[in-house]
Amino acid sequence: MRHYSDSPLLADLYELTMLQGYFSRGMNDRAVFEFFVRKLPAQRNFLMAAGLAQVVDYLAGLRFDQEDTAWLYGSGLFDFSFIESLEDFQFTGDVDAMPEGTLCFADEPILRVSAPLREAQLVESRIINLLHFQTLVASKAARSVIAAGGRQLVDFGMRRSHGAEAAVLAARASYIAGFDGTATTAAAPLFEIPVFGTMAHSFIEAHDYETEAFSTFAHAFPERTTLLIDTYDTEAAARRVVQLARRIQRDENIRIKAVRIDSGDLGAVARRVRRILDAGGCSGIRIFASGNLDEYMVHSLIDNGAPIDGFGVGTRMNTSSDAPYLDCGYKLVEYAGRPRRKHSSGKATLPGCKQVFRRHDENGAMCGDTLALADEPIEGEPLLKPVMRGGRRLEPQPSLHAIRTHAKSQLAGLPAPMRSLGAAAPYAPVCSKALRDLGNQVDQRLRALAETDRAHWEIEAG
Amino acid sequence: MRHYSDSPLLADLYELTMLQGYFSRGMNDRAVFEFFVRKLPAQRNFLMAAGLAQVVDYLAGLRFDQEDTAWLYGSGLFDFSFIESLEDFQFTGDVDAMPEGTLCFADEPILRVSAPLREAQLVESRIINLLHFQTLVASKAARSVIAAGGRQLVDFGMRRSHGAEAAVLAARASYIAGFDGTATTAAAPLFEIPVFGTMAHSFIEAHDYETEAFSTFAHAFPERTTLLIDTYDTEAAARRVVQLARRIQRDENIRIKAVRIDSGDLGAVARRVRRILDAGGCSGIRIFASGNLDEYMVHSLIDNGAPIDGFGVGTRMNTSSDAPYLDCGYKLVEYAGRPRRKHSSGKATLPGCKQVFRRHDENGAMCGDTLALADEPIEGEPLLKPVMRGGRRLEPQPSLHAIRTHAKSQLAGLPAPMRSLGAAAPYAPVCSKALRDLGNQVDQRLRALAETDRAHWEIEAG
Repeated sequence: MRHYSDSPLLADLYELTMLQGYFSRGMNDRAVFEFFVRKLPAQRNFLMAAGLAQVVDYLAGLRFDQEDTAWLYGSGLFDFSFIESLEDFQFTGDVDAMPEGTLCFADEPILRVSAPLREAQLVESRIINLLHFQTLVASKAARSVIAAGGRQLVDFGMRRSHGAEAAVLAARASYIAGFDGTATTAAAPLFEIPVFGTMAHSFIEAHDYETEAFSTFAHAFPERTTLLIDTYDTEAAARRVVQLARRIQRDENIRIKAVRIDSGDLGAVARRVRRILDAGGCSGIRIFASGNLDEYMVHSLIDNGAPIDGFGVGTRMNTSSDAPYLDCGYKLVEYAGRPRRKHSSGKATLPGCKQVFRRHDENGAMCGDTLALADEPIEGEPLLKPVMRGGRRLEPQPSLHAIRTHAKSQLAGLPAPMRSLGAAAPYAPVCSKALRDLGNQVDQRLRALAETDRAHWEIEAG
Repeated sequence: MRHYSDSPLLADLYELTMLQGYFSRGMNDRAVFEFFVRKLPAQRNFLMAAGLAQVVDYLAGLRFDQEDTAWLYGSGLFDFSFIESLEDFQFTGDVDAMPEGTLCFADEPILRVSAPLREAQLVESRIINLLHFQTLVASKAARSVIAAGGRQLVDFGMRRSHGAEAAVLAARASYIAGFDGTATTAAAPLFEIPVFGTMAHSFIEAHDYETEAFSTFAHAFPERTTLLIDTYDTEAAARRVVQLARRIQRDENIRIKAVRIDSGDLGAVARRVRRILDAGGCSGIRIFASGNLDEYMVHSLIDNGAPIDGFGVGTRMNTSSDAPYLDCGYKLVEYAGRPRRKHSSGKATLPGCKQVFRRHDENGAMCGDTLALADEPIEGEPLLKPVMRGGRRLEPQPSLHAIRTHAKSQLAGLPAPMRSLGAAAPYAPVCSKALRDLGNQVDQRLRALAETDRAHWEIEAG
């Protein structure tokens, strides 16, 4: 039995009712939709595109199976002839997109789908669901990567991620952004992301003696012993670690790699623990911190000189807690060869098939984006690249390692003010003249159509 | 191939490393863990427990399959004898929990697992992941239910939910809390939740004439036509709806059910649209509103007398955007017959196997909770009920309909000040004397053990 996340029924119902509407009129000309973020959250100077690989997998495998059609028949909502038309449904369209790891900004299409109307429409909800979440998390994670200045970062967020898929995709998105790995085991078999983890407080509590718990663990994992030391009295535990470390190194050549602190004033506690470890001759034992961390805390701890070598960043990253969603959409920009737009208050869209052109200065820093029609000759690197043609993915798709490398070089090209955790002057694309002109032309056409519509129906109604 | 969300590898790696630690020492006595929320977000006067059904499904089906063990062998992290011990792993423990839909508060255990240590430990991450998210969303959704005062509420949040599981579980959690249904189609076959949905702006834009789009849709779905009217000029569209509605009702006996507004000042727009519809003899056409809604907006619209009959509430509910996570944990409270606790700064836990007893006043309103030891004779209704025994679920488990009814009666028993969207005086459980005494006893024992630990290791190290 297929998992529901692979089903075309993982879509807003209106995708299916619209499809029946299009079917009833025989409408299935080529449509172009673009996914973009309307406005960056106030807490973000940039976004990092992510989630494309999952979109491509979804589109390449999209089929209605017997369970799906059985539900459609049983729902009583749809005409049988329409449901029959779905039985050989597949995605046959083209996709162009920014490679994952690319930095992006308001109004810039991150992905463009060009396909027969019904195909391009049906996939709306899930495409947004996939691109929105990984872009959200990669964008947040990249801020921790900048703040950590090369110190180790591990995703600790599974437990408070919003469900299973959020957990594994946050592991992926944060790894793309530059995290060293994740605590979420399933991300290893799924994506080959390095996994990290040692013990919870319950492990200490289940033993009568803290030292006994430490010793059990050091013997079970002599290669990767990180001991959690804040269950009862952190400084007493640090002293226990020193004594244990000396003994097992002397007698058994086991080295304790690190201690973890998960509560209290992490900077102050880390300093006291560092002194105890150093005084005990354990300056090789690293200090790893966790507990409600995010980029702001990581920045502040490092800024205050806390002797912390690595950070577990969890809940606040995986829920993007300071900006838990992006104002984004997947909007029709062309149908049957004609550019389209809507004028909804505060949500008007730009018509036509677009491209983003990015210029870089002599040091490789990004220095200006132009939002233009896809076929305009504009200076700069076109950011949307071909990904699928005729429903097939173009090979090779980049490995996760290659995506991560791309993300790293993107962050390296970020102008200094935008690396700040505070708000920088917005970096927004400039619209080309041709794009603006097209907007005006479409408006003229819409006005004329509205007038005909009015006249036509008033006559009919009269 | 099994989906990763059913795999025991969907867990923090430390669950597995701890298991190997326990295995290496032969530790597998009975352990009791409790899931609870440490502190309510400032924006919540109450929480509504949800997610138990998914926890029970997870526990009842938990097995390591060949792919899981293949990964464990290949990881190089674990001893082969330990991995072999997992091959016949299953959950054989007991679960007691608050029924879904029950209102709950800080420090109150929502779920208690009593099982051999390794089983009770392994399931930590996923139990938190499942209970946290649905409790988060049900708690937020219940606020919209109170604010809407009986008006229709539909979950519109799939696209910006954090992944696929978040989408379908948010549909479930909001339905439990009292929503009328969801736009997320997959929630219908999965949970038999009513689904709603009609059209997006793209449907209008793909047609040349707005009236033509409306007419296409009304003919495709004569029983459930809701027309989206804010694509271009909302008032002009409302006038088109009037003309179309009169014509198709006269000629074809098709009735337009509602119009939807998705942008602008929803209250002002709804008033203007209502006037146009009423003046055109269409007072039977309802107005449905959507677009960045949450309980605050719903409350304010209704408070200002906006003529809106139903609301699509999406992103902000499904991401619980004003409080995107709960400070919650799944903590060891007893092992091998002895109560356990940790003292971590700001995260200390209460030891022992607990129960929550709730008193109600003569009108059925809740008027006080006592947090006590599970076997204490305390006044009030014990909220944690038996759910699984010996790894098997107790039958019958409540239907989603029964859960929803329970949630409704819970909300009816909420004291008036706590129904406000603003902060009310906190409702927190009182600890029984026996529970406080146990805490002191455990502390005494921990101090004695710490002293022995110190003496023992100083001698060894000396």
